Amino acid sequence: MAMIFDRIAIIGIGLIGASIARAARENGAANTIQIYDANPAARQRARELGLGEVFDDAEKAVANAELVVLAVPVGAMEAAAKACARGLKIGAIVTDVGSVKQAVVSALQAVLPTYVYLVPGHPLAGTEHSGPDAGFASLFQNRWQILTPLAGQTEAYAAAVDQLEQFWRGLGANVERMDADRHDVVLAVVSHLPHLIAFNIVAMAEDLENVTESEVVKYSASGFRDFTRIAASDPTMWRDVFLNNKDAVLEVLGRFSEDLAALQRAIRWGEGDTLYDLFDRARRMRREVIDAGQDTPAPNWGRDEKS
Amino acid sequence: MAMIFDRIAIIGIGLIGASIARAARENGAANTIQIYDANPAARQRARELGLGEVFDDAEKAVANAELVVLAVPVGAMEAAAKACARGLKIGAIVTDVGSVKQAVVSALQAVLPTYVYLVPGHPLAGTEHSGPDAGFASLFQNRWQILTPLAGQTEAYAAAVDQLEQFWRGLGANVERMDADRHDVVLAVVSHLPHLIAFNIVAMAEDLENVTESEVVKYSASGFRDFTRIAASDPTMWRDVFLNNKDAVLEVLGRFSEDLAALQRAIRWGEGDTLYDLFDRARRMRREVIDAGQDTPAPNWGRDEKS
Repeated sequence: MAMIFDRIAIIGIGLIGASIARAARENGAANTIQIYDANPAARQRARELGLGEVFDDAEKAVANAELVVLAVPVGAMEAAAKACARGLKIGAIVTDVGSVKQAVVSALQAVLPTYVYLVPGHPLAGTEHSGPDAGFASLFQNRWQILTPLAGQTEAYAAAVDQLEQFWRGLGANVERMDADRHDVVLAVVSHLPHLIAFNIVAMAEDLENVTESEVVKYSASGFRDFTRIAASDPTMWRDVFLNNKDAVLEVLGRFSEDLAALQRAIRWGEGDTLYDLFDRARRMRREVIDAGQDTPAPNWGRDEKS
Repeated sequence: MAMIFDRIAIIGIGLIGASIARAARENGAANTIQIYDANPAARQRARELGLGEVFDDAEKAVANAELVVLAVPVGAMEAAAKACARGLKIGAIVTDVGSVKQAVVSALQAVLPTYVYLVPGHPLAGTEHSGPDAGFASLFQNRWQILTPLAGQTEAYAAAVDQLEQFWRGLGANVERMDADRHDVVLAVVSHLPHLIAFNIVAMAEDLENVTESEVVKYSASGFRDFTRIAASDPTMWRDVFLNNKDAVLEVLGRFSEDLAALQRAIRWGEGDTLYDLFDRARRMRREVIDAGQDTPAPNWGRDEKS
C-alpha cells in the first residue's frame, strides 16, 4: 500500500501503541516512527523490540511528525498532550485511542495548540494483555476504528480526517465516524458494562466464604473462565474509562440491574416460560454476531482443541 | 485402554450424549452403545451419524446395559428415568449428566428401582452448541467429571462408583467426588451465575431504546461478543438449571448484586483507588486459571488469528 504519513509519533507504547508501530511498519503506512513513553522501562523495552526511534523527551518525540497518536490511558491523555504540546509541528494531526471520547476531547482541547488538527479516535481492538510486548501487527485487522471528528471545522480539517482514515485503513481497520457522545453511549453498552460485570463477578468470587478461590479456579471452565479473561485487562485503563464515562455507564448499569432483578424474581417464583423466552432471545443475538463477522463460530472459540 | 463396560445405554443424544457415544467408541470404553431420545428427529440424526444402536423405545434401549447414562436437561431427568425404569437390568449403574445434583437425585430416587446403583454425575464440559451434531469425542479431555455418590451405601455400590470413575477417566476426564449440596453451591458460582449474567446482558442489549441492536452486533468485539457465546447455550437446559438450583443461585446472585451496587457507588463518587484495587484483584485470578490449565493463555483465545 502507499505510505500515508512520512513521520508519525506514538506517545505511550503499551499494547495499542506497540501494535500501531508494528502495523504501520508492516503495512508501510509510515516511513519513520518516533516513540515516547513516560515510563522509562517501557521506552527501554520499545528500543529492545525495535518498535521505532525511541526518545526520552516527549517534545522531541513529536518533532516534525505529521501524525501524533496519543496511546495512553484515558486519564493520562491530558498529561501526555501537555508533555508534547510545544514540540508539535504546525498542521500536525493529533489523534488518540481512548475508549471514552467526550471527556478526552475536552481534556485535549484545553491543552493542545490551535494550530494542530485534533481528530479523536478509538480502535475497537485489544487483548487481555498489556505492555509493549503484547503488541502485534495484525491487531487492527478487520476491527473497527471509530473516528469522532469535531463539528464545525474547516476543509483543511476535513482533509486531515480523511488522511487519518486512510492511515487506519492502511493498518487493516474498518473505519466508522460518529459523534463523541454517541460513541460513549454505544461503548458503554458493548464494552464498558461487559467489562464492569466481569470485574465484579471475578472479584466477588474471590471473597466468598462458602466456596474457596481454588475451587473457583479448578472448575472455572464451566463458564467463569471467560469472565477472568475480560477481567484480566489493564486496571489503570479501565479505572479511567469508568471515571470518564460515568453518566453513560451508570445509565446502562441501572438498566442491567433492573433486568437482573426481574430475572431474579422469575427464578424465585419458578417462572420457567419467562426464563426460557429470555434465554432463547439472547441466543439469537449470537447468530447475528457471527453473521456480522464479529466472532468465530468455532465451539468454545476453538480454545480446547489447542490445549 | 481396557474396555470398562460391555454394553452402555445413553438416554438423550444431544451435545453431551453424542459426545459420550463418540468418546466411548473412540477410547474403547464400551463395546456396544444403545441410544434413545424422546425426540424422533434426534434419534434419526443419531442413526445417520452412526453414534450407536438407536432404539425407538426407552425400555429396549437400556436392556442388558451395565451402565445407563441419562443425558437430558435437568427438568427431563425424572421422565427419562421413568421411561426406561422397567427395562433396567438388575445391578445396572445409572448415572446422569445434570448441572444440578440435589434436585436430580431426589427426582431419580423416586422413580428408579432399588436394584440399580444410582451414581449421580456432572461433566464440566460443553460448548455453546446443542444437538447430536454438536457432539465430539474429545469434549471431556482434561475436563472435570464430578461424581456425587450417595451416602451410606454398600460395598457393591462403592465398586459401582469406582467403575463409573474408570469409565469417565477412559473418556479422558479427570474425576472428582463431592457431596451433591456442595456441588450445587460451587456450580452456582462458577457456572450458573456467569450464564445468568450473560443471558441478562445480552437480552438487555436487545431492548435498549438509545442503542440499536445492529450497533451492538457491529461493535460487539469490544467485550460484548464474549457474553453472546455463553448466552447461546441451550435455553431448555438453562431454564431447568435455574428452576432446580434456585436457592444456591439466588444466594450467589444476591452477593453479586450487592457487590455491583458497591461498584456503582464507587463510579458515581469517582473513587478511582477503589476501582483500581478491585480490577487489579480480578486480574490476578486470570493467572491462576491459566496456571491451573483451565484456559489457554493465547490473547483473545487466539480466535482473531483464525478469522
